Amino acid sequence: MEKLFVVKIGGNVIDNDNNLSAFLTSFANIPGRKILIHGGGKIATKIGDQLGVESKYVNGRRITDDATIDIVTMVYGGLVNKKLVAQLQAKGCNAIGLTGADANIIPAVKRPVKEVDFGWVGDVNATGLNTANCRLFLDNGIIPVLAPLTHDQQGHILNTNADTIASSIAVALSAAYDVRLIYCFEKKGVLENVDDDNSVITLITRAKYKQLLNEGKLFAGILPKIDNAFDAIEAGVKEVLIGHADDLMQNTTENTSGTLITN
Amino acid sequence: MEKLFVVKIGGNVIDNDNNLSAFLTSFANIPGRKILIHGGGKIATKIGDQLGVESKYVNGRRITDDATIDIVTMVYGGLVNKKLVAQLQAKGCNAIGLTGADANIIPAVKRPVKEVDFGWVGDVNATGLNTANCRLFLDNGIIPVLAPLTHDQQGHILNTNADTIASSIAVALSAAYDVRLIYCFEKKGVLENVDDDNSVITLITRAKYKQLLNEGKLFAGILPKIDNAFDAIEAGVKEVLIGHADDLMQNTTENTSGTLITN
Repeated sequence: MEKLFVVKIGGNVIDNDNNLSAFLTSFANIPGRKILIHGGGKIATKIGDQLGVESKYVNGRRITDDATIDIVTMVYGGLVNKKLVAQLQAKGCNAIGLTGADANIIPAVKRPVKEVDFGWVGDVNATGLNTANCRLFLDNGIIPVLAPLTHDQQGHILNTNADTIASSIAVALSAAYDVRLIYCFEKKGVLENVDDDNSVITLITRAKYKQLLNEGKLFAGILPKIDNAFDAIEAGVKEVLIGHADDLMQNTTENTSGTLITN
Repeated sequence: MEKLFVVKIGGNVIDNDNNLSAFLTSFANIPGRKILIHGGGKIATKIGDQLGVESKYVNGRRITDDATIDIVTMVYGGLVNKKLVAQLQAKGCNAIGLTGADANIIPAVKRPVKEVDFGWVGDVNATGLNTANCRLFLDNGIIPVLAPLTHDQQGHILNTNADTIASSIAVALSAAYDVRLIYCFEKKGVLENVDDDNSVITLITRAKYKQLLNEGKLFAGILPKIDNAFDAIEAGVKEVLIGHADDLMQNTTENTSGTLITN
């Protein structure tokens, strides 16, 4: 099978123009098939503030009301997404900016109201992803750049976690490609010692993960990321890489510098 | 050759939710290959006002400064474009929302500064349109929905007139398809008597146009639209139709109710 790199970047890369430009150069230089998924960055909150739309939270989780979905549609789907696409085009990468509504790539369902009404938030319909259209793009040299937005197939855009979109699309395309899912974050990888940025654990297998858990060596905040990585691997993704955005190029090779997670 | 309908709607359709929904139902029902190009509507001005960005004009023409290009990228490329795409998806039309930067569909050049610096305004590079990617979408049942934005291939989004985008894409694709370019506006067609909405001139050939001009029967405001239509026909478009958004469905048949312009 052909290789496919599914790369997710967060707001910390998007918010800094110099970091972003360097990152996009690396991404443009990855040979072959690749997909970029981006988060939002601080700009949505800033524009929301300017428009007088207050960010609402319940138990620390953001609520996407009518005004907020319009803002994230504008900012994530418009401003941020098209900025990335235009810059990638300038670097010779034939990017296409998409939300989950475009070509019906990522259908979702509005999260059911239980204790909390999250508003216009979408849970990905994992078995419904339009992999045929993704493959059409990838196999014709067109590089999808996905905003963290999906749709309910009833006419509404939904706000969706970018990490979830990345793992969903990686899983859905793992039947057609050898997928490496790369999460770029602010550290070089999973650290054995949180105070030492150079203590990267370069390989985590299931056996190694058990051992690390038993030894109590891992920082609690990283555990959900590793659990999600193994969920993606269980569902078909070949390997997951957690590393720094600056190390993207190396982390697409066999000689990775971040943390490679595999069975 | 297969038929292709290139349909342009303006702000008057976008600004009214009921009109828009009815229009999108008609558009979704057009069989075969089709492209939608949308203008902006009043929402960009409204959001600009809320963000404290003043609309600047020189000689009645809008200037697209740094703050304004961000707003139109958000509003045209994000809010309006994704609203149309999500609603078309709900109506069974496999729409994909694009700016000219996406898949490099419409490269442009930043308008050179002469008497006036229009800012981030793009003049379409008419011979550079990526017709291969357009055809890839169209021939695979994916329906492009184009925002009035292009790019300079150097990393910048540019503001571009929606009528120009519509005619440029219609011309570029006329080598591959029998193209009917449909401009939806607020009248049923070109009127013989501007005070009588039912006095539509149903067919304008070049000979008929000369005759109408000689008779002084045409309203001056419509002349640029007709001139542009003949320019498009000269460049390969089979026919141009000027009509009301409500009449879209009929205007895709042979039994048109608007004004059909042809050689």
